Amino acid sequence: MASNFTDKATTRRAFLKGSVAAGGAVLGAGAAHAAGDPLITETQPWAMELGDGVDATPYGMPIRFETDVVRRNVEWLTADTISSINFTPIHALDGTITPQGCAFERHHSGAIELAKEDYRLMINGLVEEEMVFTYQDLERFPREQHVYFCECAANTGMEWAGAQLNGAQFTHGMIHNMEYTGVPLRTLLKEAGIKTESKWVFVEGADASSNGRSIPMEKALDDVLVAFKANGEALRKEHGYPVRLVVPGWEGNMWVKWLRRIEVTDQAVESREETSKYTDTLEDGTSRKWTWVMDAKSVVTSPSPQSPITHGKGPLVITGLAWSGRGSITRVDVTLDGGKNWQQARLAAPGQPMALTRFYLDVEWDGEEMLLQSRAHDDTGYVQPTKEELREVRGLNSIYHNNCIQTWWVKPNGEAENVEIS
Amino acid sequence: MASNFTDKATTRRAFLKGSVAAGGAVLGAGAAHAAGDPLITETQPWAMELGDGVDATPYGMPIRFETDVVRRNVEWLTADTISSINFTPIHALDGTITPQGCAFERHHSGAIELAKEDYRLMINGLVEEEMVFTYQDLERFPREQHVYFCECAANTGMEWAGAQLNGAQFTHGMIHNMEYTGVPLRTLLKEAGIKTESKWVFVEGADASSNGRSIPMEKALDDVLVAFKANGEALRKEHGYPVRLVVPGWEGNMWVKWLRRIEVTDQAVESREETSKYTDTLEDGTSRKWTWVMDAKSVVTSPSPQSPITHGKGPLVITGLAWSGRGSITRVDVTLDGGKNWQQARLAAPGQPMALTRFYLDVEWDGEEMLLQSRAHDDTGYVQPTKEELREVRGLNSIYHNNCIQTWWVKPNGEAENVEIS
Repeated sequence: MASNFTDKATTRRAFLKGSVAAGGAVLGAGAAHAAGDPLITETQPWAMELGDGVDATPYGMPIRFETDVVRRNVEWLTADTISSINFTPIHALDGTITPQGCAFERHHSGAIELAKEDYRLMINGLVEEEMVFTYQDLERFPREQHVYFCECAANTGMEWAGAQLNGAQFTHGMIHNMEYTGVPLRTLLKEAGIKTESKWVFVEGADASSNGRSIPMEKALDDVLVAFKANGEALRKEHGYPVRLVVPGWEGNMWVKWLRRIEVTDQAVESREETSKYTDTLEDGTSRKWTWVMDAKSVVTSPSPQSPITHGKGPLVITGLAWSGRGSITRVDVTLDGGKNWQQARLAAPGQPMALTRFYLDVEWDGEEMLLQSRAHDDTGYVQPTKEELREVRGLNSIYHNNCIQTWWVKPNGEAENVEIS
Repeated sequence: MASNFTDKATTRRAFLKGSVAAGGAVLGAGAAHAAGDPLITETQPWAMELGDGVDATPYGMPIRFETDVVRRNVEWLTADTISSINFTPIHALDGTITPQGCAFERHHSGAIELAKEDYRLMINGLVEEEMVFTYQDLERFPREQHVYFCECAANTGMEWAGAQLNGAQFTHGMIHNMEYTGVPLRTLLKEAGIKTESKWVFVEGADASSNGRSIPMEKALDDVLVAFKANGEALRKEHGYPVRLVVPGWEGNMWVKWLRRIEVTDQAVESREETSKYTDTLEDGTSRKWTWVMDAKSVVTSPSPQSPITHGKGPLVITGLAWSGRGSITRVDVTLDGGKNWQQARLAAPGQPMALTRFYLDVEWDGEEMLLQSRAHDDTGYVQPTKEELREVRGLNSIYHNNCIQTWWVKPNGEAENVEIS
């Protein structure tokens, strides 16, 4: 269908010349083409008038031309917007950092407003000394910084039964990736002094749902952060202001927002959110007790249903995201023909632990249809499975932890559609 | 004055117990203390009511409690807000990423509104084929991603004559640090085909000022990016939407916004912005012809005049930023006594080339006054100089390229002030 992009200037220049006929975009063989383009030949209004002064936006928002790059929900998914989910517009983003303003939201009883002055974090249970920290107390402990992805366990969940949602934002947009600043949870646990019989922590939010999850002590003492900043600034209200838990590589509902209590226990609490919810039912009808880690996964973000090819054949940048809750992405393969032939994609930077990795495949598109897929590898040797491989183990009744290979059918007119191939 | 923070849990626990008396913040010796804190003992409104649903903010803004964390300008600095500067609130940020919404702005004729459809980029001059690219054309070339700082040449410029502006936001806030996605400039130059006699490129913006700068071909072919995304999303209007130049490590005014033209030349243009402006006058009255690279520099962001110590003595996190236009930060030293004794700060992550590095020094503050300074080292072996050392070479008449060591006088009440010490 499409061949690897060759870096010969002549090839690309030929393409650009070709586009002159369509859009007059290139001077190419002479300035004659540009003569017809007033955007080149005439002085434009924005070059004659003053723009906005620096008082215009003390805190800026995206320009009005980008108002479609926002979080969106899917109305039929849930009955109300309180318990609903909205999705990151990953089809329109590039790079790896997700701005807080368009990073997906999921709340169990809505995003609450909690001032720093009113914030308290209690550590109780099997500790030498039960403690309560104010926000200011937390600011006095040594801090760390890390970029981590946060993925909802239900991301891609609607796709178990078939190809349903027509866009990467909706199939894979329950994910974001930010630079967090916070205090390691182990520092606070050491402060309180954990007793020898302690094996778990139960973490709980201050909102009405008091979303609570049990975390094994080994993880709690490893890389969990009590975070108060994301991408440099305070957490946004919808991301748990002023303090949320960051549980690298593990499912998003454990990243408790508006964190209010950490109980040190000798066994798991088995709360609602870790029994009736976020549990994987298998093909035989039994359920897995815990599935914490988000396995290696990837998706092509462009082209995709919300990001069609609009420029016709010739050079095309195929790009997407890959991640693994078990470590770093080491490799991503891309196929244009539904898995018959795979090519190794270029990683924009070496994979980092439990963080999004951006990949690219630069091709010369021949204008024929494509069945686009990507396949992630992580540093444990794990390879992202097909949906069929997952279904063999999990059946069709699952909701959570769907990390299957995604297929976009790209048509000759450049439009793309979510499909399943067998 | 203050000693290194010791990681003995007893020390810190003693401090936290101490704070019970002041604020009842810790259960400490028993739950009796918390019994008086209704934020612990009583169910709060936000735990009884539903919060906002996910429809509330398709694109989110900071919570209302953080409305002081915004860009600010200094009214007396310039006559009007069009040619003025606003400053990043670095005193209130942590980590290294700067959100676009609060990243400093500097325009020469205001921030213009330029739609992608109206965008054109011309390459002309000493090329085999003069070319004009549309925005869509640029999207078809292989992309790269890098995190880089952008610092205005005039950052800290008001401090040459003495300690003037009372806050890290105003002394050092003409800097931001973002993850850029774009096409390497060398790719576009190769596309047009540069002639053998070409030695420079002259880059120009589409705004009325047509801010133009000459860049040596060696740099143009090295790491310069024609960027269209920052921190994952489109550039904001005030940061050059839809396309700006990224010139890693070099002064901010060369990072031309609303980039419209690249002329390949055999000599520098010597435009207004690189002759009468952004030029360093030396002690003897002569001027340096070019000063492109931003030398190694650092500043303590907290505590600082806008971020005083409000919690009294005991554990204190001292933090700040360091950067170098010549490479990576390898080390930052911090002194609490105006340079008599230096301690090596902890870097949150290994320094990355031409990107902000966050540093921390965790101390036990004895409540006495401090003369806080930080000193950056980069991987060329360069060490950030004192203001006196800079003045010996540059005199008092300079405006630009002030990378001197900054001093904050922290008083026993925790307030801080911008001072000079000799």
